[in-house]
Amino acid sequence: MDKLIEAIEAKDNPSVVGLDPTEALIPAQVLESLNGQAGEDGDNVAVDRQSIAGEDVSSQASSYPAGQVAAAFYDFNRAVIDAVKDIVPAVKPQIAMYEAYGALGIDAYRLTCEYAHSQGLYVLGDIKRGDIGSTAAAYAKHLTGVGGRNEERNGQPWTEDAITVNPYFGTDGITPFMDAAAGNGKDVFALVRTSNPSSREIQELRLEGGGCLYEHVADLVEDWGRASRGDHGYSRLGAVVGATHPRQGLELRRRMAHTFFLVPGYGVQGGTANDVAGMFDDNRSGAIVNSSRGIIGAWQKSGEYSPDMDAQEAIDLVAKTARAAVIAMRDDLAQALRSR
Amino acid sequence: MDKLIEAIEAKDNPSVVGLDPTEALIPAQVLESLNGQAGEDGDNVAVDRQSIAGEDVSSQASSYPAGQVAAAFYDFNRAVIDAVKDIVPAVKPQIAMYEAYGALGIDAYRLTCEYAHSQGLYVLGDIKRGDIGSTAAAYAKHLTGVGGRNEERNGQPWTEDAITVNPYFGTDGITPFMDAAAGNGKDVFALVRTSNPSSREIQELRLEGGGCLYEHVADLVEDWGRASRGDHGYSRLGAVVGATHPRQGLELRRRMAHTFFLVPGYGVQGGTANDVAGMFDDNRSGAIVNSSRGIIGAWQKSGEYSPDMDAQEAIDLVAKTARAAVIAMRDDLAQALRSR
Repeated sequence: MDKLIEAIEAKDNPSVVGLDPTEALIPAQVLESLNGQAGEDGDNVAVDRQSIAGEDVSSQASSYPAGQVAAAFYDFNRAVIDAVKDIVPAVKPQIAMYEAYGALGIDAYRLTCEYAHSQGLYVLGDIKRGDIGSTAAAYAKHLTGVGGRNEERNGQPWTEDAITVNPYFGTDGITPFMDAAAGNGKDVFALVRTSNPSSREIQELRLEGGGCLYEHVADLVEDWGRASRGDHGYSRLGAVVGATHPRQGLELRRRMAHTFFLVPGYGVQGGTANDVAGMFDDNRSGAIVNSSRGIIGAWQKSGEYSPDMDAQEAIDLVAKTARAAVIAMRDDLAQALRSR
Repeated sequence: MDKLIEAIEAKDNPSVVGLDPTEALIPAQVLESLNGQAGEDGDNVAVDRQSIAGEDVSSQASSYPAGQVAAAFYDFNRAVIDAVKDIVPAVKPQIAMYEAYGALGIDAYRLTCEYAHSQGLYVLGDIKRGDIGSTAAAYAKHLTGVGGRNEERNGQPWTEDAITVNPYFGTDGITPFMDAAAGNGKDVFALVRTSNPSSREIQELRLEGGGCLYEHVADLVEDWGRASRGDHGYSRLGAVVGATHPRQGLELRRRMAHTFFLVPGYGVQGGTANDVAGMFDDNRSGAIVNSSRGIIGAWQKSGEYSPDMDAQEAIDLVAKTARAAVIAMRDDLAQALRSR
């Protein structure tokens, strides 16, 4: 985890921007300006663009060919990355948003990771994969690339610095990822306590002998990481702990002394800077806080958007508002950490 | 689940072929014959092909460009599908094996699903995705396609009939998939009791008040499926229950009267026909048993392979041995079910 910790120190900012684009989060002008970028659905052009009122249309049918959306995602992400790269240490692309559009979407994810990497950012691939044996080893190519170490060869499909994984399989589901991470200077984050309300149905089940399931998973994660502790005392295996559980997060911080936290749920999901402050260690390290829609969707709440803008004006607004949002988040977290 | 149940009845065979190719499972001639299919790594051609002794090299570096491997996976899968399509009702491509190779691999997965579908097979995408809200809705496009119902438009990236999902998030992580399934005549299978040894570390944790975690998840799955029961009494939400846990599988069969089982772990992982027999209902329905390497790797154990074969001869051997293996598996299961 040293690379991430040092990147956070260099920017003095423990926050990460989630790159989770949807068609509704991209200004219509930007999507429409890419007409002609289509793949094999090329003849299926925009017909009934949704309003840009901010409604999440991810469960609705797409109006654009997959290749056009994928191209728009990449252009949008580059604009966001350029706008925030001197403020934040890391970005977290959510692969689901890209995978929805098939191979063309996956290519936009790959290009996004590559571009972020080229701009000096730590790239945390939010893939939440989980499987065993040779299947997990195949997913672990997100950390190794298909032809050996990423550094040694061009054209790798995967260049993430870290990925998220699901712990439901136990050790068999973690070891292939940890082996890949250790051999390639990468990191892994295992789900421990997720931010969503119904996570309690499983994660808060009380165990015979005491404690909850998520606490047991926390102990496993701390133990699975033991052999990979770095210069700053944290292992290569981090934990995902939702900002929406401040008390549990504080207790987990004490329980998992060598496990770095990735904290989703700040902002739109309801977590505040004070909620996450307890998830940091005494040196104000030990955690990185994610915001996605609060950053990349800031243009929608700015009151400055107009449908009359051209694509360049709209993307400039995306960049300007994202930059303002990451600065506000950085300062919000700093204030909360100072006043603990 | 009606479509799957009727497909099983039509073939009188409750088994599914896992399409989990690796470079080591493809005859070298087949891989080499596709030189020139490369993507942007095109100059990185084969240098040190692994032996075909059957060793799993999935964690090792690839000798071939991603495009060449992806093309070989698709050719290999088509040969297997053609050889087994009158014997089995379903195939289960494991997306990890394809995703390892990036967008080109994902395209081979898509083409494999499409081809299997075109040959009348039920396609169960083993993707084990798990997330919440708009992210889960994005993954659910595996069931809906990006432009609405798959049937209404060509060029969809995803055409699976069903997918596997991870239950760690609780209801929030299941609802988006169930909504997509219900609206599109598709199915979902949630992990309940996985086949790997260390799954006990989490899944067999004993809960305060009695029972194990996997039994609690089983009850949730039975409940989550309640509103989607079909003509044959089974809901659209199935359960993954490993063949390596015969006693637990028998108990789960009784516990989850309306939940269809996908049973991995038969064959190479150690599960036998007698082990899985208890996971069927009194009508010899209620479960489908998967075999992957035992079918698609049968050519390696046949004693008939020679490095001197040309690519066509090698692929013919793959097809012949896969066909013999699915017939043997069908008859093995039928025997065990008759003698219960």
